[in-house]
Amino acid sequence: MNSNLQNILHTEIPLTKSIGIEIAESTDLSLSLSAPLDNNINHKCTAFGGSLYSISVLSGWGLIFLQLKQHGLAGHIVIQESHTQFIKPVTSTIISRCSFENQEAIDKFISMYKRKGIARIQLESRIEAEQETCVIFSGRYVVHQ
Amino acid sequence: MNSNLQNILHTEIPLTKSIGIEIAESTDLSLSLSAPLDNNINHKCTAFGGSLYSISVLSGWGLIFLQLKQHGLAGHIVIQESHTQFIKPVTSTIISRCSFENQEAIDKFISMYKRKGIARIQLESRIEAEQETCVIFSGRYVVHQ
Repeated sequence: MNSNLQNILHTEIPLTKSIGIEIAESTDLSLSLSAPLDNNINHKCTAFGGSLYSISVLSGWGLIFLQLKQHGLAGHIVIQESHTQFIKPVTSTIISRCSFENQEAIDKFISMYKRKGIARIQLESRIEAEQETCVIFSGRYVVHQ
Repeated sequence: MNSNLQNILHTEIPLTKSIGIEIAESTDLSLSLSAPLDNNINHKCTAFGGSLYSISVLSGWGLIFLQLKQHGLAGHIVIQESHTQFIKPVTSTIISRCSFENQEAIDKFISMYKRKGIARIQLESRIEAEQETCVIFSGRYVVHQ
């Protein structure tokens, strides 16, 4: 499922190949995506903000994608609105982790989608390095049939 | 100056070459960046959110860069925080336009930077297509020596 997600990202969003996105870790409640600094470097030898954003928004997108698959569902997953804080520069491999708050949040979201054919969810992704938070991304996604 | 900015972006942030960023238009008060849909396409044949964000954040970055140059100044331009609304999908060439509110806003910003060696500014970038707003990006940038 996870290598499948990586293939889907690389095939359907070609820029993710340039970014070098890989699946770092996946659990029922969370998804971590990674990308090398080299592909995403800027003039200050830190990660470009647009890359940090892309990896953050996709870790939420991928988390929803995997949940839908797990429930035998398909749908269009769209980002509607986001707030991003760049707290510290990222100077090594970029790893963004997005988590559902708890199992109840997933169940509520899936149940809403099954009932209405549309559901919204607010997800937070964090990029950390050396135990410090570098980026906090909060995004509202909508899934529709 | 503008082709110079394009070279700087492509050289110093290699991902901007993959995105295909070009300078579309530049005035004293505004900067428009463009990128082809093909480089930034997603599974729905619309522009990937991470690309829309990258072009938006860079139109603000570039606008500040050009103003600093015009005043014979140099500095590090960093995005601190942003809010992005994805209102409509983008299905053609992406053009993001970032503007200073007025000349007074520029003067205040430049004067603050000269005095303190650090200055913050809130800028808005918009991506429009067929007279409709598709993306509104609002970013707080800091410039420091």
